[in-house]
Amino acid sequence: MDSVLRQSKAVCPFMRQATAAGLRAMSTAVTPATPAASPCGGAISKLQVLARRCPVMGKAMAIQSARLGHATAGFPAVPAKATMSTFSGHGKTAKASLHTSRSQEAQAVDGSLFTGRDKVQLPPRVPTKPHATANPVVEPRASAPDTHKVKFDYESFYNHELDKKHKDKSYRYFNNINRLAKEFPRAHMSSKEEKVTVWCANDYLGMGRNPQVLKAMHETLDEYGAGAGGTRNISGHNKHAVELEHTIATLHAKEAALVFSSCYVANDATLATLGSKMPDCVILSDSLNHASMIQGIRHSGARKIIFKHNDVQDLEEKLAALPLHVPKIIAFESVYSMCGSIGPIEEICDLADKYGAITFLDEVHAVGMYGPHGAGVAEHLDFEAHAQGRPRGTIMDRVDIITGTLGKAYGCVGGYIAGSAKLVDTIRSLAPGFIFTTSLPPAVMAGARAAIEYQMTHTGDRRLQQLHTRAVKESLRERDIPVIPNPSHIIPILVGNAELAKQASDKLLYDHGIYVQSINYPTVPVGQERLRVTPTPGHVKEYRDQLVNAIESIWNELGIKRTSDWAAEGGFIGVGEPNAAPEEPLWTDEQLGIAEAARTLLQAADAEQHQHQQQVPISGLTERLLEKEMQGARSVTVSA
Amino acid sequence: MDSVLRQSKAVCPFMRQATAAGLRAMSTAVTPATPAASPCGGAISKLQVLARRCPVMGKAMAIQSARLGHATAGFPAVPAKATMSTFSGHGKTAKASLHTSRSQEAQAVDGSLFTGRDKVQLPPRVPTKPHATANPVVEPRASAPDTHKVKFDYESFYNHELDKKHKDKSYRYFNNINRLAKEFPRAHMSSKEEKVTVWCANDYLGMGRNPQVLKAMHETLDEYGAGAGGTRNISGHNKHAVELEHTIATLHAKEAALVFSSCYVANDATLATLGSKMPDCVILSDSLNHASMIQGIRHSGARKIIFKHNDVQDLEEKLAALPLHVPKIIAFESVYSMCGSIGPIEEICDLADKYGAITFLDEVHAVGMYGPHGAGVAEHLDFEAHAQGRPRGTIMDRVDIITGTLGKAYGCVGGYIAGSAKLVDTIRSLAPGFIFTTSLPPAVMAGARAAIEYQMTHTGDRRLQQLHTRAVKESLRERDIPVIPNPSHIIPILVGNAELAKQASDKLLYDHGIYVQSINYPTVPVGQERLRVTPTPGHVKEYRDQLVNAIESIWNELGIKRTSDWAAEGGFIGVGEPNAAPEEPLWTDEQLGIAEAARTLLQAADAEQHQHQQQVPISGLTERLLEKEMQGARSVTVSA
Repeated sequence: MDSVLRQSKAVCPFMRQATAAGLRAMSTAVTPATPAASPCGGAISKLQVLARRCPVMGKAMAIQSARLGHATAGFPAVPAKATMSTFSGHGKTAKASLHTSRSQEAQAVDGSLFTGRDKVQLPPRVPTKPHATANPVVEPRASAPDTHKVKFDYESFYNHELDKKHKDKSYRYFNNINRLAKEFPRAHMSSKEEKVTVWCANDYLGMGRNPQVLKAMHETLDEYGAGAGGTRNISGHNKHAVELEHTIATLHAKEAALVFSSCYVANDATLATLGSKMPDCVILSDSLNHASMIQGIRHSGARKIIFKHNDVQDLEEKLAALPLHVPKIIAFESVYSMCGSIGPIEEICDLADKYGAITFLDEVHAVGMYGPHGAGVAEHLDFEAHAQGRPRGTIMDRVDIITGTLGKAYGCVGGYIAGSAKLVDTIRSLAPGFIFTTSLPPAVMAGARAAIEYQMTHTGDRRLQQLHTRAVKESLRERDIPVIPNPSHIIPILVGNAELAKQASDKLLYDHGIYVQSINYPTVPVGQERLRVTPTPGHVKEYRDQLVNAIESIWNELGIKRTSDWAAEGGFIGVGEPNAAPEEPLWTDEQLGIAEAARTLLQAADAEQHQHQQQVPISGLTERLLEKEMQGARSVTVSA
Repeated sequence: MDSVLRQSKAVCPFMRQATAAGLRAMSTAVTPATPAASPCGGAISKLQVLARRCPVMGKAMAIQSARLGHATAGFPAVPAKATMSTFSGHGKTAKASLHTSRSQEAQAVDGSLFTGRDKVQLPPRVPTKPHATANPVVEPRASAPDTHKVKFDYESFYNHELDKKHKDKSYRYFNNINRLAKEFPRAHMSSKEEKVTVWCANDYLGMGRNPQVLKAMHETLDEYGAGAGGTRNISGHNKHAVELEHTIATLHAKEAALVFSSCYVANDATLATLGSKMPDCVILSDSLNHASMIQGIRHSGARKIIFKHNDVQDLEEKLAALPLHVPKIIAFESVYSMCGSIGPIEEICDLADKYGAITFLDEVHAVGMYGPHGAGVAEHLDFEAHAQGRPRGTIMDRVDIITGTLGKAYGCVGGYIAGSAKLVDTIRSLAPGFIFTTSLPPAVMAGARAAIEYQMTHTGDRRLQQLHTRAVKESLRERDIPVIPNPSHIIPILVGNAELAKQASDKLLYDHGIYVQSINYPTVPVGQERLRVTPTPGHVKEYRDQLVNAIESIWNELGIKRTSDWAAEGGFIGVGEPNAAPEEPLWTDEQLGIAEAARTLLQAADAEQHQHQQQVPISGLTERLLEKEMQGARSVTVSA
């Protein structure tokens, strides 16, 4: 038996790590309520609770059971945990919740696995029978106690899960928002008469109502019908897919691209496939990565190492600790949607080169929005080179896998990956999430392609979007409203309290006709609740003034903290922090044409100043520039 | 240490199952090629290869590593497997391929885990250094051998994966098929001039070109634009979603419904969420379940037990072996798409009641196609009750969760679940695949709703589809072409060889202008390769004759086995089996109006017989009925 022990210590990383004392402690931490005559038997120590979650072995048992056609003595049919948590009413389930909605809490293993913090207190449906026994007892089913003669109550379980959401204020109430193509950025609610201004959509450029996009969709609908009619392999592959993928590959200057139902699916399927197929792959994941990447990594079964958000030094330490020859994927984003921070793409590419990793860059919130052709932040970083059609050797060229969406700045739906021909063909050939699903409708693909091509040749929308973003940020700053600083187009307004954030959102909607969804836990951590504002080219001065005035009045009404309040407390996540370096916008003054315009304006102001003996306020620069812009040739609201 | 050993035996189901001899054997099955000075050390016994795949423990190590910021002694940075398989060139990776494309091979754990059959032979990139050592050696990175100074070659890996697909003939070549709305079921290929008849799309009823569907889509596009603009929680919830979900709930007579990007996502997200959230959930899965369900079950981490396809007795044995109080999901389909078999829904509901399980029924290939309102097979089984608006107590009413698609018979894209209000709200609140993704476009939701509502009030399309299916099956039977028998609308024509199936498909396309994709491994098992034909209401006699003639000529040309050939060998998967019970179509003669029409026809034939003294061939009945049908009021090709 000693050799078996040595073997088990050598084989199981958990056993190898665990101290004898730790194991003892876990083995004696026995919860009551296990009926002695459980048909499956089994100790109910904390250790066993952990062991039951070993999916490989659990699956091996399932196979065994499937082969034998019945539960064997070695395959305990009644897990101790169920006895503990489901029926005792005061037990804990430490079940690893693989599927949580905690988007920002990137964790290798759900915390509850080790802390048991995620208490499930299902209603006690049968009298509990506290028995403190740790000895596995296997008895025939016939002698099962009454507790096990009661079927699981599914509806109570659902109720219980929903109660938890209500209690921690994470239960979501959807607002019925019908965005009107001809009145962008306006929408009606349930009733057509009840109009609101949408300030939180991800149709960042209003491409959802772009005439060229709509024209392409109408024509394709008429000619090729509503749906694709099959998977890509079976009658769902068509010229729309071919052309769209060609356009995407061109956009990112990659050899190939592949379109998925959504970028959630693209991220999930690609990471899951690569992580599971590449031998001993390690995935290094930014701590603020989107839920789709977190799921993809989980689903891959690959080792995951989380590095601190945008922390290149931390990433390097983690890379350096891994052997050079092991395949590694660094998964990160360009624009992080909830805080608007921007990933250090070039530095991460450098590290990838140095340590033999590949880069997986999610440009979901950046495509259409940055760069001379709208290819995203990676393109933006070599603005001139790309503007001149020289992608080779640029940062975008160095990124191995770029993923993007057709559902935000491009105004349609769907997602994609772009990369080398072999990579794309591998995912095309292996990813079930790509293979076994119906293709996007021809009209959607045609519309998305029209949107990308439009944005490849028109920079006006994204420039205007940036100017509107600057204008709103400037106005909020003037009024001491706390915006979490960032270099992007996202305006996260810090509230810092779930109740208040929901109230502020409701008041905006019902008192001011402005729709800004509150962002609460689990999308952001508790205490960091915010309103996330997303300007578009359609948010002209009238709408911006309404927004800023409404926010100010609500901040007064609800007594929400101002920037100066946060500053008085020493600052928080960038707001009111004394020594925080200013966040320079990624779109520079030069790129936006502000530098040039400012020179003109200042010359005019100079003359004015001589005339009126007063200073031109610098804060009004963006607004004044926008006035000029509005008077210019390009109309913001393109009508059909 | 003895107590630790007992503990490990008690705790780990694998250890508890394993015999001492088995462990010894696995521990001594050491492969060569581990460099002694590996920076991670670690034995490379078969046992250790298994242990590395313990995701719980592996993840615990990853956390540990993430916390420390570097690889610890207990967290081997270079897994032995990589050394074995990646660089030896003759090693095996027994890595569990979580993401395979094997849709029909529902397995609790990938077979390769235990048999090592899934050999990966990456090109030997560096000289191998065979060392048979089983002792973990931990040494600093600096002393790593040359083998580990080489970065992983990602492109070679992709190449290698693609080579495998080419070698086993599972590499997929997509055909460019552009289905023409105004010439249904015709399509053009890359060139608009090159026309073909599509015989394998899943737009079973031609709803993709239904005028009411297209009208709804055009109008919605104009009014509400191309895309939804956000997730359901953030500006992507609208009246189209509300109305579509209401329509779906009504269709299935359930309290609520929830729409997803696709039914792949619906199945994956729902099973993964329920399986991971319900304490100790066990999922019983039909062995032919679709890839989306297999993935959902895998992603749940729940215990999975596979029951034999449509085998109620096997399912009952497996249910009986589980304790009553443990939550169980029976996941199965109504129409299995590749063989056309139909699940025993009522019997499974009975078992679910008896053993305290819930039923998860995938009606993807049945919605729109069966039942008086097109709600699927479950509805069809109580045809009269549903026709009379009495859903309570029916089989459909007893099914807990129904999933369906908007992308096949409804001609659009998207998927859904329907069930109790609490269940739907739970999935809505917990499933990341629902929460963190952009909503379907308003126009798609409006089109899908129009399609469902149309089919709720029109039975003509699905009746005609069934009649065309019968006519094709009859013609093929007459010509001794082997159709795998089934009671549904799927016509699987057995070829039994990958090369031949691909050749037959290519010949149909290029010699006859008929598109029928060949279905090869891994979608069906090796040796069961087939052509899967799906008639629609648009496949009128001209097209049917072309198809049957083309198939016959190709069968002759390529020497593909006839039904009688299979029969001579004793039969195979229902084809040519001597004592196979005849498969009665689910749509009965009465339901299709054939019984009535047959009586009329036979009376006429009787008269004719008297007149001409000859027999009316029974096999021609469907064709004759269809002739009558075509002369009738309802035009098959609805033009805009």
